Amino acid sequence: MPRHPTKRDFPVAEVRRYLEPGPIVLVSARRRGKANIMTLGWHTVMEFTPSLVGCVIAAGNHSFAMIRESRECVINLPTTALTDTVVAIGNTSGAEIDKFAAFGLTADDAREVEAPLIRECHASFECRLHDDALVDRYNFFIFRVVCAHVAPTPEHPQTLHYTGDGVFMVAGKVISRRSKFRPEML
Amino acid sequence: MPRHPTKRDFPVAEVRRYLEPGPIVLVSARRRGKANIMTLGWHTVMEFTPSLVGCVIAAGNHSFAMIRESRECVINLPTTALTDTVVAIGNTSGAEIDKFAAFGLTADDAREVEAPLIRECHASFECRLHDDALVDRYNFFIFRVVCAHVAPTPEHPQTLHYTGDGVFMVAGKVISRRSKFRPEML
Repeated sequence: MPRHPTKRDFPVAEVRRYLEPGPIVLVSARRRGKANIMTLGWHTVMEFTPSLVGCVIAAGNHSFAMIRESRECVINLPTTALTDTVVAIGNTSGAEIDKFAAFGLTADDAREVEAPLIRECHASFECRLHDDALVDRYNFFIFRVVCAHVAPTPEHPQTLHYTGDGVFMVAGKVISRRSKFRPEML
Repeated sequence: MPRHPTKRDFPVAEVRRYLEPGPIVLVSARRRGKANIMTLGWHTVMEFTPSLVGCVIAAGNHSFAMIRESRECVINLPTTALTDTVVAIGNTSGAEIDKFAAFGLTADDAREVEAPLIRECHASFECRLHDDALVDRYNFFIFRVVCAHVAPTPEHPQTLHYTGDGVFMVAGKVISRRSKFRPEML
């Protein structure tokens, strides 16, 4: 797997392909010129069009205020090649370190938002805050994906799925029931 | 894998272990004596205590009104042993068939809710509707897990993670970074 996967434009209405399986993601943000990254496992697809994703971002995270105020972020999809980086990002706070510099990650310019893309990730989804109605009560942000970038290979990258306690499940093997797929049933 | 895993009581505050990895789940409901099951991939853990899980249940589903009116459901975790059943449940409507009978599944009594447990699943989480604030706008139900049942073995069952188009990723292999786990960072 290349250290820097080359990403291409991807339809925002189809990001469920990467997010519905429930991988750990790296959420990047930028505010007042400073960038940060957090690991996040509590997210769900909510709609195809507009392309909506709901995320719980605990108020204790350094990124919480950055995202709430900038009303933007990027949801990046790491693969197992970045396992130790994912753990390190989750174990540190952007209040204390610059995570891009500390962990050797590259901040690329996004197209629609100020928050940076993480070059080393398999996919990056640029997001705008769509609805903050449940932020006060549940720290629940509803984002609209406005631009998507995905590496075309591998077709099914090995992703990390967090169980807590420092243990991840790995998904990558595929079972196809495409022949039984009924598009009207999703 | 036994066809009927034996489940034991499990702490409701720890259901993230099974749901945070993002598996396809089978949601069972009961209203006016009739039970139904739907497949669901759009869910996220939202809080440990109370144990909250958010789920998008499209209004077109037969279960939507059943769950909205009964204000209860059970979130059941199938493994790859049930792959074809998961697909069949997703391809049919409870308006037309009795899915328990049609697919040879066993409805066990739950402890706290009227909705049935699916005996053949690895885990079953009894839920009460906790907050319906976003149901009208996004079909987003926030449930509180009030009782949890989990088969103790296998420790990491193979679960199905849906990508759309009839294709599932399988998670089961585990990567542990437990030695680096910092409980205060989750």
